[in-house]
Amino acid sequence: MRTVFWDYETDEFKMIDQRRLPGVFEVLAYRDYESVAQAITDMVVRGAPAIGATAGFGLALAARESAATSTEGLLADLQTASAVLKAARPTAVNLTWALERIMRIAQSVKGSVEDARQAVLEEAQCIADEDVEINKRMAEHGATLIEDGDTIVHHCNTGALAAVDWGTALGVIHTAWEQGKKIHVLVDETRPRLQGARLTAWELEQYGIPYDIIPDNTAGHFLKNGQAQKCFVGSDRTAANGDVANKIGTYMLALAAHDNGVPFYPVVPTSTIDLSLAHGGLIPIEERDPAEVLGLQFQGERVAPVKAHARNIAFDVTPARLITAIVTENGVVYPPFEANLKKAVLGQ
Amino acid sequence: MRTVFWDYETDEFKMIDQRRLPGVFEVLAYRDYESVAQAITDMVVRGAPAIGATAGFGLALAARESAATSTEGLLADLQTASAVLKAARPTAVNLTWALERIMRIAQSVKGSVEDARQAVLEEAQCIADEDVEINKRMAEHGATLIEDGDTIVHHCNTGALAAVDWGTALGVIHTAWEQGKKIHVLVDETRPRLQGARLTAWELEQYGIPYDIIPDNTAGHFLKNGQAQKCFVGSDRTAANGDVANKIGTYMLALAAHDNGVPFYPVVPTSTIDLSLAHGGLIPIEERDPAEVLGLQFQGERVAPVKAHARNIAFDVTPARLITAIVTENGVVYPPFEANLKKAVLGQ
Repeated sequence: MRTVFWDYETDEFKMIDQRRLPGVFEVLAYRDYESVAQAITDMVVRGAPAIGATAGFGLALAARESAATSTEGLLADLQTASAVLKAARPTAVNLTWALERIMRIAQSVKGSVEDARQAVLEEAQCIADEDVEINKRMAEHGATLIEDGDTIVHHCNTGALAAVDWGTALGVIHTAWEQGKKIHVLVDETRPRLQGARLTAWELEQYGIPYDIIPDNTAGHFLKNGQAQKCFVGSDRTAANGDVANKIGTYMLALAAHDNGVPFYPVVPTSTIDLSLAHGGLIPIEERDPAEVLGLQFQGERVAPVKAHARNIAFDVTPARLITAIVTENGVVYPPFEANLKKAVLGQ
Repeated sequence: MRTVFWDYETDEFKMIDQRRLPGVFEVLAYRDYESVAQAITDMVVRGAPAIGATAGFGLALAARESAATSTEGLLADLQTASAVLKAARPTAVNLTWALERIMRIAQSVKGSVEDARQAVLEEAQCIADEDVEINKRMAEHGATLIEDGDTIVHHCNTGALAAVDWGTALGVIHTAWEQGKKIHVLVDETRPRLQGARLTAWELEQYGIPYDIIPDNTAGHFLKNGQAQKCFVGSDRTAANGDVANKIGTYMLALAAHDNGVPFYPVVPTSTIDLSLAHGGLIPIEERDPAEVLGLQFQGERVAPVKAHARNIAFDVTPARLITAIVTENGVVYPPFEANLKKAVLGQ
């Protein structure tokens, strides 16, 4: 089953509600793009590739909803929907990438307004299908970096749930496991939303891969004591120079890997590489509701004082100097990143 | 009010139950040393200086409990109690330091067994009183390092609750605030037991010092973006070369400070400096029940899968090379730490 998909029987867009896992497995159905944008903001769906595919299907819903009788009218409605979907989350570039790709298709349709509606859905489906194929190719490339017996630190969730299927960094780990490599995963719980403890642990249980959940602040101890041999993470946006924006905490993990000579690998579909940004300092970083930090309970009781203040930064930027190599669907990219990422993206 | 104290009216040892703060303020009374040892293990009390004073009062309870009619009999009972108290938590050296100091006094008493009982309680009280005075001296030295306008990252809880009163790193911050310096504290929530979100936030509210709670993995982002100017932490045991064992996550925070040229200061009473250990690799690191990691709830629901595995490492070691200076009650100690810590401890 895919994380996000178009249901052709009911003509609805559907997603697994990731906020309720692992306790409850529920699939939600959507019939309008505004609800899809809200779902992205609320993190019903998260993970850069999954967000990209979701935005695509959101645009397909907008095409359905539009009462336009001309292609121009439809394009105007799609433009409005695209702006709403794009604003749902600022950091992941896939969102923009998928929307722009579909808008280009919509603009190029020569036939009727109905043809254009159909073309939008087909392109959204194509993005979703391609994503799975791209993830499988990344996984094959990335798995060559994993050795039998490795313990791997993993941050956030980058598995099937973060993509349409299979996943990015966790897809690499999954493929290495299927190749028969005996591995163990140290799962950063990933505060504040706990995608590691919640989703990555759940996925690893499905695959039968042994793991331990650790607080994010514990990875350094294991790396320093020779108890972890690799780090794999995802990316929400990668700049032209190889700086990687990813879930908050990635930078501190990369520092700990670097300090101990442990290889650090972001797994990055080329759709998340933004060659228009010279460096990571230009990537917009989302700040979310402090309630996500303060809502924590332990043994049934709220942890923080009632009037406590908090900051909730959703992403950070890991400088390229801390990165060993970047895994893409077009191969493993080593420094110098500026030249080699360009080659990987543009195929030059 | 002190965090741990002897109640001379009821002849009981009393402690604030730190597990229930900030929701409930409760003082627990103890009449036997075994319960005190269990309370240390269960973290009713935590923080190296507070644990040291608690162990001392635990030994005073053991002296009361002992039915011995000779000094030799009492010493044997105290030896047994000392071993139990010492085993309550392995990393903090104050525990051993306080127990050994009181045992030396008990052994040197020339009078009756009742005189020896009294001497044990007096020495425990003396350790507690000295701790407050030492903390005040550390705070004066440390506050010279804080400038008006500083934003300070703080890990775990090192305030009055972690000591008998006033505190170590948070004592420094408190003193700087009382000197009129306008400061802001970024409070690492400090997974898994959340001493930052729970206790440090609560203390800062009592003092009126502005703060924001942040997930531990977020400090790097603020340090990288020039939004924090200092880091202050405590220490459970410091080796002769300046390596500092402290609450898990301290090492990754020190890496982030170092990577951005931000000064990193452990605040360390000399009783936590263990000159017998050449380096931090020799400090025993406590591993605790995985349930402390897995017991997390969010919006009323358990986060991790039901059968999830976890690792719960309570401390890590920050290498001396990442430390700017160590604040002690005898002054601010700069590198080379091996020579200068020895001077600070032995007064040479």
